[in-house]
Amino acid sequence: MFQAAIMGFGTVGSGVYEVLDRNAATVTKNAKQSIEVKYILDLRDFPDAPYQEKFVKDFAVIENDPEVRIVVETMGGKGAAYEFTKRCLLAGKHVVTSNKELVACHGAELLRIAAEHNVNYLFEASVGGGIPIIRPMLQCLTANRMLHITGILNGTTNYILTRMIHAGLTFDAALKEAQQKGYAEANPAADVDGVDACRKICILSDIAYGDNIFPEEVETEGISKITLADVGYAAQADCVVKLLGRAVLQEDGTLYAFVAPHFVSKICPLASVDDVFNAILVSGDMLGDAMFYGQGAGKLATASAVVADVIDCVRHDKHRRQFDWGDGSKKLLRPLNSFASRWYVRLTGDDAAARLLAAFPDCTQLSAQAEGEAACLTAELTTAQMNEKRAALGSVAGCMRLL
Amino acid sequence: MFQAAIMGFGTVGSGVYEVLDRNAATVTKNAKQSIEVKYILDLRDFPDAPYQEKFVKDFAVIENDPEVRIVVETMGGKGAAYEFTKRCLLAGKHVVTSNKELVACHGAELLRIAAEHNVNYLFEASVGGGIPIIRPMLQCLTANRMLHITGILNGTTNYILTRMIHAGLTFDAALKEAQQKGYAEANPAADVDGVDACRKICILSDIAYGDNIFPEEVETEGISKITLADVGYAAQADCVVKLLGRAVLQEDGTLYAFVAPHFVSKICPLASVDDVFNAILVSGDMLGDAMFYGQGAGKLATASAVVADVIDCVRHDKHRRQFDWGDGSKKLLRPLNSFASRWYVRLTGDDAAARLLAAFPDCTQLSAQAEGEAACLTAELTTAQMNEKRAALGSVAGCMRLL
Repeated sequence: MFQAAIMGFGTVGSGVYEVLDRNAATVTKNAKQSIEVKYILDLRDFPDAPYQEKFVKDFAVIENDPEVRIVVETMGGKGAAYEFTKRCLLAGKHVVTSNKELVACHGAELLRIAAEHNVNYLFEASVGGGIPIIRPMLQCLTANRMLHITGILNGTTNYILTRMIHAGLTFDAALKEAQQKGYAEANPAADVDGVDACRKICILSDIAYGDNIFPEEVETEGISKITLADVGYAAQADCVVKLLGRAVLQEDGTLYAFVAPHFVSKICPLASVDDVFNAILVSGDMLGDAMFYGQGAGKLATASAVVADVIDCVRHDKHRRQFDWGDGSKKLLRPLNSFASRWYVRLTGDDAAARLLAAFPDCTQLSAQAEGEAACLTAELTTAQMNEKRAALGSVAGCMRLL
Repeated sequence: MFQAAIMGFGTVGSGVYEVLDRNAATVTKNAKQSIEVKYILDLRDFPDAPYQEKFVKDFAVIENDPEVRIVVETMGGKGAAYEFTKRCLLAGKHVVTSNKELVACHGAELLRIAAEHNVNYLFEASVGGGIPIIRPMLQCLTANRMLHITGILNGTTNYILTRMIHAGLTFDAALKEAQQKGYAEANPAADVDGVDACRKICILSDIAYGDNIFPEEVETEGISKITLADVGYAAQADCVVKLLGRAVLQEDGTLYAFVAPHFVSKICPLASVDDVFNAILVSGDMLGDAMFYGQGAGKLATASAVVADVIDCVRHDKHRRQFDWGDGSKKLLRPLNSFASRWYVRLTGDDAAARLLAAFPDCTQLSAQAEGEAACLTAELTTAQMNEKRAALGSVAGCMRLL
């Protein structure tokens, strides 16, 4: 029997307990021994939980119990979660997490500490929830140079955009619906502003390129300015609006990484990924395109990925997993200024059409959907060029890259 | 430096050499040492290949060279490939393969021999070509009971069906085009009759359910009888025709496995998988649905999966990968007779509509597309019930399950 502790009994943490309990037979078969949760750390009380004796409020109980060999960190954030994770690894315990913020900000350091103490720090659930993506990239795509990674990495924003596209809801109405359904938090900023997607594209870039890309270095734009007008012009261009996290490798080995809403052609398999589903499209120089699709969030889906990592720790208790993750010294990330793509631009105002044509003489015009409005698809322009045009135009009602 | 041999210098085998050569830097970084191909075994001559000194015609050269620690088997078939693989494993060499026929028929035995000699027998490329699927199932989905697996597992048939659906080609014309493009072989039977898909669903079932399901036990139906009429009725029902390999778990732990063309609802993510692409949809009791999509064949895509397995062998030279694969003694496979689903049925003849309604009084009728023809979607019927109806009706022009 292998003993574990869960730190943080929120949605994912309680899901981990539930998966271990409900699928105990499957877990035991695959781990080749049973896994028991000895402690659950949470400052809150859970008077209705049947296993009261497992709850502790003092981290030291877990840290000092040599019987606990795996710790699941589902607290979130990078405060106590960071400190406790470090102390668990230092104490020679494997740590498994779904905490993308902590992995994105301190993954390299925590992996190094894990290596020094011959234990694992695993985080499959930190990107794509229940979708296998970290391990396939680390083990199955190793013969490829990863040319680019393009992901719908946040279920909340994808739900909102799906409802705008297919039900004609405004952003505000779709957000409200997402909150009512429990897909969005009362304070939706981390999702809606792209912060969550940014952490995930950082983790994927770190793994694919062996460098440490930090969230604060990655230009991130959310979806709160998207309107039904933009959604309509996208349809006219045979596209849908999707929030994408992207990493794009250059010939010289440097890369761009950013998060922004895009016009995605309906031909692209990402275009049909709807509702709270996530999908990650990776393109290898030998493999071509491959896509991983599934539930990017949700209690049991995410918890099942955490438990799979726990099983992997048990199976490979003595053989540490080899993760390559640079310390950031490679400085592969390029400023987005020089990244070129085609763009969608929408202007409003009486002379919108004339101003748009003057600014983008090579553009493909879209049919105006309302009076005093004009929209087009530009030729290829760098981010810097587009920023100049936007500054010259004064105010732009809508502007997104094409994928 | 790690030395390897390639047995069989056909499409995939020469692709393996090319990937190791072109991506040598990436391979060396990920394997943490260089990998050199010492021998290439093939009975044919390749006078134009620049590395003539590597070619050998005698397997014993590889078998008896202790420096060769990994052997790539890309010969295909289960004759010499079976014998040579066994002898390599017995000689303490890791074996990596893309040979689905051999894995489906002798995987359990070869894995047992590999385990006894503390080496790996890896076959990620045997299903889905370059798409990671074996390893994600073995490592990332281990906290789930796999409720069902549904795959578009053969690129050739998917190309033919795509051309019938989107370009209105007949089966014969689409097959001819596939042959001209190199997607189908001169003798296309293994693809068109579902034999290739059958081997792959066997391998996936073996891995997901820990039993050994043999191709000869799995009912397999190909696509050669599909007509444009069937494709048209599918469109009417908001479906597309896809050849699916399916494994469906029952409550009692037994399972159905089969290969057959289906009407797939356009809502299903498998419906938009076109051309030579493959996709595998797995449904876990905790995870929900996840889909893996990409190039299911092709020289470099498949070879990149083989090389990733080679890298994994190098990385884990001393730690054998743990694959669970039963010996077939569980006898989980149920006869398909009792498997129930809704069906599409098409009849021809003057009284087609009346005969159809008499046979399937609960059906949903489709609008006839031609004189003397009638089609419908039935209520749920078992395979045995449908076979009885078909026997009573005499001849049925088209008949497929709905997914």
